[in-house]
Amino acid sequence: MATTHHTLIIVGGGPAGLTAGLYAARARMDHLLVEKGAEGGQVLLTDWIDNYPGFPEGISGFELAEKMTAQAKRFELNSLFGNVVSMDLSSPIKRLELESGDSLSCDALIITTGARPRGLGVPGEKELTGKGVSYCATCDAPFYRNLHVAVIGGGNTAVQEAAHLTKFADKVTLIHRRDELRATKIVQEKAFANTKIDFIWDTNVTAIEGKDGVEQLRLLNTNGEESTLQVEGIFILIGVMPNNEMLPLTDLAADQGGFIPTDCETRTAVPGVMAAGDIRSKEVRQVINAAGEGATAVLAAENYLTNLS
Amino acid sequence: MATTHHTLIIVGGGPAGLTAGLYAARARMDHLLVEKGAEGGQVLLTDWIDNYPGFPEGISGFELAEKMTAQAKRFELNSLFGNVVSMDLSSPIKRLELESGDSLSCDALIITTGARPRGLGVPGEKELTGKGVSYCATCDAPFYRNLHVAVIGGGNTAVQEAAHLTKFADKVTLIHRRDELRATKIVQEKAFANTKIDFIWDTNVTAIEGKDGVEQLRLLNTNGEESTLQVEGIFILIGVMPNNEMLPLTDLAADQGGFIPTDCETRTAVPGVMAAGDIRSKEVRQVINAAGEGATAVLAAENYLTNLS
Repeated sequence: MATTHHTLIIVGGGPAGLTAGLYAARARMDHLLVEKGAEGGQVLLTDWIDNYPGFPEGISGFELAEKMTAQAKRFELNSLFGNVVSMDLSSPIKRLELESGDSLSCDALIITTGARPRGLGVPGEKELTGKGVSYCATCDAPFYRNLHVAVIGGGNTAVQEAAHLTKFADKVTLIHRRDELRATKIVQEKAFANTKIDFIWDTNVTAIEGKDGVEQLRLLNTNGEESTLQVEGIFILIGVMPNNEMLPLTDLAADQGGFIPTDCETRTAVPGVMAAGDIRSKEVRQVINAAGEGATAVLAAENYLTNLS
Repeated sequence: MATTHHTLIIVGGGPAGLTAGLYAARARMDHLLVEKGAEGGQVLLTDWIDNYPGFPEGISGFELAEKMTAQAKRFELNSLFGNVVSMDLSSPIKRLELESGDSLSCDALIITTGARPRGLGVPGEKELTGKGVSYCATCDAPFYRNLHVAVIGGGNTAVQEAAHLTKFADKVTLIHRRDELRATKIVQEKAFANTKIDFIWDTNVTAIEGKDGVEQLRLLNTNGEESTLQVEGIFILIGVMPNNEMLPLTDLAADQGGFIPTDCETRTAVPGVMAAGDIRSKEVRQVINAAGEGATAVLAAENYLTNLS
């Protein structure tokens, strides 16, 4: 099987990867971007993006991905459709194995494999994603002005975002599978004091129903009782999972959640390996900061390569 | 004189500040963005931006600033034209003094005052900025395909960017006021080995001349000899200066260059004070990562405010 070498390889074609690709191509580095699906990453799952600066009326996730891709291609982005299944980062020449059986090698590597929201895995969830089912209150809250929405989860994110949603929605129902929240005390207290939030305890969502948008949830109490709840939106905030299956997590000193720690210049624990976007260990996962990190990562790669003897 | 209090104040209206403003406004935080000139910051000085992801054909600096401003205003950005002349960050309520004599106070503060390239201060420099005079090779190199350009400076940035420019320009002349470079050895060696780079030592630029674009430089050797050099572009890479005159640098633990260190979530040494964009102590200063940090800073501010008792 063939092995192809490039100075820089970027794994992942979401906003971080495409921005890295744009910068690498513009800098005329010998580079390759490897993406296993469609360029755009999670952005493609997002119906409408109102908070990517530069688009006053917002932009569809699909169109933003298309524009980022076209821009990188204008500067002769070199890309490959391929699924990286494993990496060997133990020597200065990094090796990547593809599902096809081919191998790639490189001097510098930028990991932008992203993350995915943890889903409920219930009927209706996939079909109504972007049509009332959301995984990001920061992104989508303003679309729910004067409506009734449900929030699923009991951690800091879920409870904080429930409070945030009350600035827009008329009523927020937080549904949690246990009888108490995991969120820190002060966050809990603020939520309990908020008259627009009510709570349904010990309850799981078993289905999300609706025709062109979310209309109701089917609920199951741990005591066996079934019920339904009419809502126009559901925010599933039960965590985010790193796309790290192909990464050597020990070498990269992955955190407890499986995300990759870096310094502020995106450098990981392995010299010559950068991580940008949602796969990074960080607090804020937004399209705009993923893109920013993609640019930073290429400059970090250039510095690393310049100092190679 | 009046003092007005806001939960969050953002000082500076460049890409970092406008993105912070967009996020704060969308989150319906009680906020105020203070800008002393026109919204857009250094972006307004940039004729054409090819590397802000989302604009396949590029976009003018003016138009990008306008779009970012319009987007934030759509979500009811609260902004004020005012010149902050000093800050008191010694207590939880931060105080800002304006040139007008009015005061502002806030619980959380995001500093996005930016930086400016150090200029030569010679005739023609201002007039031809964006028309052959550039302060950023990463941004503008591809515009100089097959042309002859000069690079001014002797540090790592100047020498690395001279090498970078040879991927596009036919010839790069590095002009330095001393007889040796400050750049690290390996960077120097690569530049000396590059046949497309020549060097003019012990020489200062005294004027930049041209009608609609750069045509020639007037040079003065330290031995008193005058000469001219025909070039189509000049990259002035003699450093960048922080806009920090209004900042309490000791409280903020400013670095040697006067920039503000933060953690990767943009938090400075002062609780409740974030710094984003070019004013941050960092290696890569690009529009896209400034914008990304603006978003990160607002989420950091929200976390800080949530945990205030």
